[in-house]
Amino acid sequence: MNEIRKDYLLNRWVVIAADRGLRPTDLGKSVLEQPKKKTICPFCPGNEHITPPSVLTYIRSENLLIKTHDQGSSRIKDWEIRVVPNLYPAFSISPSYNNKSLTEKNPDILKAVGHHEVVIESPIHDEHPANAKLTRLIYVIQAYHDRIHELSQKSYVKYISIFRNHGLEAGASLSHPHSQIISMPMIPRIVQEELDNSRIFWKKTSQCKFCDILAREIDGPRFIWRNKDFIVFSPRAGVNPLEFWIVPTRHMSSLLKITKTEIKNLAKTLKITLQGLHELIPSVSYNYAFHTTFDDESSEYYHWHLEVYPKLSTYGGFEKSTGVYINTVSPEIAADMLRTKIIH
Amino acid sequence: MNEIRKDYLLNRWVVIAADRGLRPTDLGKSVLEQPKKKTICPFCPGNEHITPPSVLTYIRSENLLIKTHDQGSSRIKDWEIRVVPNLYPAFSISPSYNNKSLTEKNPDILKAVGHHEVVIESPIHDEHPANAKLTRLIYVIQAYHDRIHELSQKSYVKYISIFRNHGLEAGASLSHPHSQIISMPMIPRIVQEELDNSRIFWKKTSQCKFCDILAREIDGPRFIWRNKDFIVFSPRAGVNPLEFWIVPTRHMSSLLKITKTEIKNLAKTLKITLQGLHELIPSVSYNYAFHTTFDDESSEYYHWHLEVYPKLSTYGGFEKSTGVYINTVSPEIAADMLRTKIIH
Repeated sequence: MNEIRKDYLLNRWVVIAADRGLRPTDLGKSVLEQPKKKTICPFCPGNEHITPPSVLTYIRSENLLIKTHDQGSSRIKDWEIRVVPNLYPAFSISPSYNNKSLTEKNPDILKAVGHHEVVIESPIHDEHPANAKLTRLIYVIQAYHDRIHELSQKSYVKYISIFRNHGLEAGASLSHPHSQIISMPMIPRIVQEELDNSRIFWKKTSQCKFCDILAREIDGPRFIWRNKDFIVFSPRAGVNPLEFWIVPTRHMSSLLKITKTEIKNLAKTLKITLQGLHELIPSVSYNYAFHTTFDDESSEYYHWHLEVYPKLSTYGGFEKSTGVYINTVSPEIAADMLRTKIIH
Repeated sequence: MNEIRKDYLLNRWVVIAADRGLRPTDLGKSVLEQPKKKTICPFCPGNEHITPPSVLTYIRSENLLIKTHDQGSSRIKDWEIRVVPNLYPAFSISPSYNNKSLTEKNPDILKAVGHHEVVIESPIHDEHPANAKLTRLIYVIQAYHDRIHELSQKSYVKYISIFRNHGLEAGASLSHPHSQIISMPMIPRIVQEELDNSRIFWKKTSQCKFCDILAREIDGPRFIWRNKDFIVFSPRAGVNPLEFWIVPTRHMSSLLKITKTEIKNLAKTLKITLQGLHELIPSVSYNYAFHTTFDDESSEYYHWHLEVYPKLSTYGGFEKSTGVYINTVSPEIAADMLRTKIIH
């Protein structure tokens, strides 16, 4: 099982994922130098046996969506969505695991207990959320929701990260459309800082900080798009060129609380904004990630949202050593550029 | 003048460097996609007029090193080192600047007051610290020292970052050997956290945390190399594959306190470790960055050091959204690999 280690002085954790079995010779080739292998795509229909059994499979029968999962060595065919364990998990769970063994003698080293799953978003190898049917995006968000619901039941899970890497430059090693879900035994630094400071704001003002941000951004220079349930804007201090956030207008701390209508409107928002981004920069790589809780403690002061990071710059020694970023596109210009591509 | 903005909730600052004049059409091409232009290198001898006047130039006259700088439109030739203002500075100083204008009404937006300089390390276009003469590295470190000394006199300078980006993948847009120096009006988050927590440790134990780390790492599984004045090891929770740190054995909070002998031994350490890294992975890109203070306040509890980050992985949505990292090479294996290449 991997270890999670804390820095000597910083509140920064790293998963030492030596389990992935990287050999010295692998290090020489960067992801970008590796030739595109014409090997079998493990996520394409027909190759289901290459992945571990799914923990969740969506199939459609007439107009009904049926939720099931693989059993033993058999694999369900004709699926819409498959969620499978990652073959090289950063976080995992061993049969001998028990709660006591989570922390060893050293409080700065934890076992990387948790789950690492892949959401295979489509049976179509080169489908992208921007050009897929809306139903596809609805299924994907529904699958995120279902997995958070399931994983949040585990006593050792303190946070669940849902994210998507698109394109080699954004860290995607496979091009078949997929997202990832990682559950972990601690709340990550960035989310903890959001939780702490939004709680402080709430205690002082009885208001949710994100609701306050929405009220300011909705008619300001960084506003990009909205529908009934979601507002899209470029964050005031975004660290990535063209970064934008998708935030629900209704106050809710957790993606678990999303309604069917809101799922549909989130799917629409995601599709139209990614379409706009691709129209602006056709070959763009990007990451997106949810920030969400799943417990009731933060329900009054936290507000889940989705952050989208186009990959258009490279962090250097300055950013990595200081934690200060340089963004060469102001959020106001970014919003202008995206707005013109999104509103037709 | 650029702005520095603070995140809505996080203690994270970003320089909005719209001054760099990036146009929408530039965004489509990532650094890696751009064809290598066969244009004139602004850092090569003969092209001194392309850069602004140097703020520091080293020339050698017989066996003496002479420190001077360009005056007006004339440019000193036959130099060993040139330090010039960055043409696209992230931080800058305007003639109308005064201390009062540093903070505006909004405490979350500062003016990006400071300096952004380039240290042109050599007249030879493709020289690298690993294959340069030792004298070259001594000059480079001496130039870092001289510039910190000069910049730290300014009342508005709160921190000085010295860093090197090597290779396109590590963010270097020009291949001629160079480093950068940025002075800024606040202490960056990562350094502030190191300062805060090393002060806490010192108050509790009357010891410097870094001296304590050295005592542990010097004969442990992460030790890589040492000479009289410097110890090299792979940090316990390093976030980059093959990351290593170079730490002075003598307790000193600031690079300003380094002696002539220590400069020579740092140059030797840097050369031999970068040689080892290149032998292990010939085409490796990397960043290095100093963590140092320049005032007396932290002299008892802080300890300057140099961190080296090989660029062998790509951060994805998980790292960017959580601040938790995944390192696929354990620091112990990294130290093993580097040790065998460094000790001949």
